[in-house]
Amino acid sequence: MSTTTGPIVTLLTDFGTRDVYVGVIKGVILARCGGAQIVDLAHEVEQGNVHEGGYLLASAWRYFPAGTVHCAVIDPGVGGDRRILAAEVAGHYFVAPDNGLLTELFNDTAPTRVVSVENESLMIQPVSQTFHGRDIFAPAAAALAGGVTLDELGPRTESWLKLPRVEPIEQGSELVGQVVHIDRFGNIITNIRADDLPDEPRVRIARHAIHGLADSYQSVPRGELLAIIGSTGRLEISINQGDAASLLAARVGDAVHVLTESE
Amino acid sequence: MSTTTGPIVTLLTDFGTRDVYVGVIKGVILARCGGAQIVDLAHEVEQGNVHEGGYLLASAWRYFPAGTVHCAVIDPGVGGDRRILAAEVAGHYFVAPDNGLLTELFNDTAPTRVVSVENESLMIQPVSQTFHGRDIFAPAAAALAGGVTLDELGPRTESWLKLPRVEPIEQGSELVGQVVHIDRFGNIITNIRADDLPDEPRVRIARHAIHGLADSYQSVPRGELLAIIGSTGRLEISINQGDAASLLAARVGDAVHVLTESE
Amino acid sequence: MSTTTGPIVTLLTDFGTRDVYVGVIKGVILARCGGAQIVDLAHEVEQGNVHEGGYLLASAWRYFPAGTVHCAVIDPGVGGDRRILAAEVAGHYFVAPDNGLLTELFNDTAPTRVVSVENESLMIQPVSQTFHGRDIFAPAAAALAGGVTLDELGPRTESWLKLPRVEPIEQGSELVGQVVHIDRFGNIITNIRADDLPDEPRVRIARHAIHGLADSYQSVPRGELLAIIGSTGRLEISINQGDAASLLAARVGDAVHVLTESE
Repeated sequence: MSTTTGPIVTLLTDFGTRDVYVGVIKGVILARCGGAQIVDLAHEVEQGNVHEGGYLLASAWRYFPAGTVHCAVIDPGVGGDRRILAAEVAGHYFVAPDNGLLTELFNDTAPTRVVSVENESLMIQPVSQTFHGRDIFAPAAAALAGGVTLDELGPRTESWLKLPRVEPIEQGSELVGQVVHIDRFGNIITNIRADDLPDEPRVRIARHAIHGLADSYQSVPRGELLAIIGSTGRLEISINQGDAASLLAARVGDAVHVLTESE
Repeated sequence: MSTTTGPIVTLLTDFGTRDVYVGVIKGVILARCGGAQIVDLAHEVEQGNVHEGGYLLASAWRYFPAGTVHCAVIDPGVGGDRRILAAEVAGHYFVAPDNGLLTELFNDTAPTRVVSVENESLMIQPVSQTFHGRDIFAPAAAALAGGVTLDELGPRTESWLKLPRVEPIEQGSELVGQVVHIDRFGNIITNIRADDLPDEPRVRIARHAIHGLADSYQSVPRGELLAIIGSTGRLEISINQGDAASLLAARVGDAVHVLTESE
Repeated sequence: MSTTTGPIVTLLTDFGTRDVYVGVIKGVILARCGGAQIVDLAHEVEQGNVHEGGYLLASAWRYFPAGTVHCAVIDPGVGGDRRILAAEVAGHYFVAPDNGLLTELFNDTAPTRVVSVENESLMIQPVSQTFHGRDIFAPAAAALAGGVTLDELGPRTESWLKLPRVEPIEQGSELVGQVVHIDRFGNIITNIRADDLPDEPRVRIARHAIHGLADSYQSVPRGELLAIIGSTGRLEISINQGDAASLLAARVGDAVHVLTESE
């Protein structure tokens, strides 16, 4: 069988799928880099929510092969004076607005090069005031996918907007983390890493307490709360075949407490 | 024009599209089988609903070319002791949990080989407790797409979980079937085959009766109920340019009666 | 890197993504044209809404490379006596029902050839009564993608269904246009072209008045209304980081007034 690989371009946006904005971006990429394999990461990011977009991007990129171009357009500042960045991180390429969207990615893995995308000859002219995804991001992603170097996109830069880092903090005998994401199943994903947990953690969220870590969703009866190490190596709160976030009315940003010392 | 064909991998999940779970699965497949063409069947299956997932899979697979790998992850038992199956059916390949998801497929067309996926060297290590779609299903699908044989995935098995078969039954002068699916348009799809219908069937559902089969939606006035042979060769109840399921408050599992003898 | 280009086929439907109808169409295309790159334009078009579908198609097609096949299935008349058209427009190919869906496209750019798709040897037999997307549209699109000529699909035709043309009209000192689309962000897109606007337009919609054109969303304070030239070169009404359509309770078809002379 054929295993010829075209360059891969992933797309992460808040454009939704009711309009043709995402389709137009794909058209631009395919018109400029015919062999590209385009993969949707997600398009239902809450509008303008760079925290959520940044979390999703940081969760997904490493599962693609090196050389993949990740094009992320959560860009409420379109048409204003925010820059557009292109970066190389561990052999992957990223195109994103300079609005903090890449903060979590860069915290996890330092970029080796970052440029400000300014080469107008690679943009769709005239550049619109409202759809840089089509006019600047897609052409830049297609250029990288086709072998254009970062330096051809624009000048190097050493500074960019960083969102405040949200790390768990120690408060007395507790580690206090946060809810960073709630998925479709109602799983509550926290920023507390498996390595930071004691062997038998006591987890507290809202008015609920959970003792110990489950080996799987099935290790508690159906409908019961459990704490488990999720697929990104972080503490998650779930219900076996249920929706933990609904039951607990949990929201991104809510506190999650872990007792780190025995009482 | 180029008509080079990469191996095709279809995906059917209940992961939704708000998260990046589906995107991550695609990354894993492309990292392991670069030329794969990945096609979404559906990702909005009700969570954990193996009946719905099985129906959708059985409706779709035969329209793809032989050699296609169909990867189906409706897997509420993830992390528990359910097995993961890989099967060959009429020259197609399937990867799915052993939870009944393949029941309707296997009822339609007997599998020629079924194995239990156990080859750990083909999994992402360490295997997570919550995301076998990424760690086991996607690598197995990529392996099959790349030419690995079923027997390399794990040992043959001759038994697997089967859901109860839901076939229409004869009750006196009636054939009593069930609603098996309701589509976006509100079309009510039953399990009654065209071959089992008399020439002029009298169909009864909820408190409504329909006489005869329509040739097309337009063969009745706009807004009227009709019975028609749908695209899978089964009896469907529809409204011309309307939503039959809403009008009748129909749900999957509801009874549908067909009078098979003249009164 | 490889830049081999397979033929591109775009899909625009009102099938939604909960069912496998779109997946089945992709299977049929890939079974008949293995190297095709299939791109989703949108599948959430309101059911049977050929105005919305026609607007989306006319907005998107030109961003794809010449040779692309655009397959549009918003087809409430399926199974009736409406024809199915295939057309060549500026080097692109289109397959669509003859129900007005191509009106806006043809208004923008005259087709060079239009045929009525009637070659039964290129259809899936037996053709179903309810799913021509699978049985006729997809095979026709795959045939065009694979190099079959328009004339092989069926006889030339010089007439087809046209929806009434909706153009802005002059009323005294006002240009009166319409809302033609509302996107996910609540941007209100009109049919008034930038070229038809005075330098400092006074825009009136519902009970709100806007003076002048904004250079970008950020050029007004957060939460304020603005008028801007959108990405298709038409007047749009937006709110900086807000939802203009909700605030104004705007709907497709609503009037938008522009004062063309100074008071």
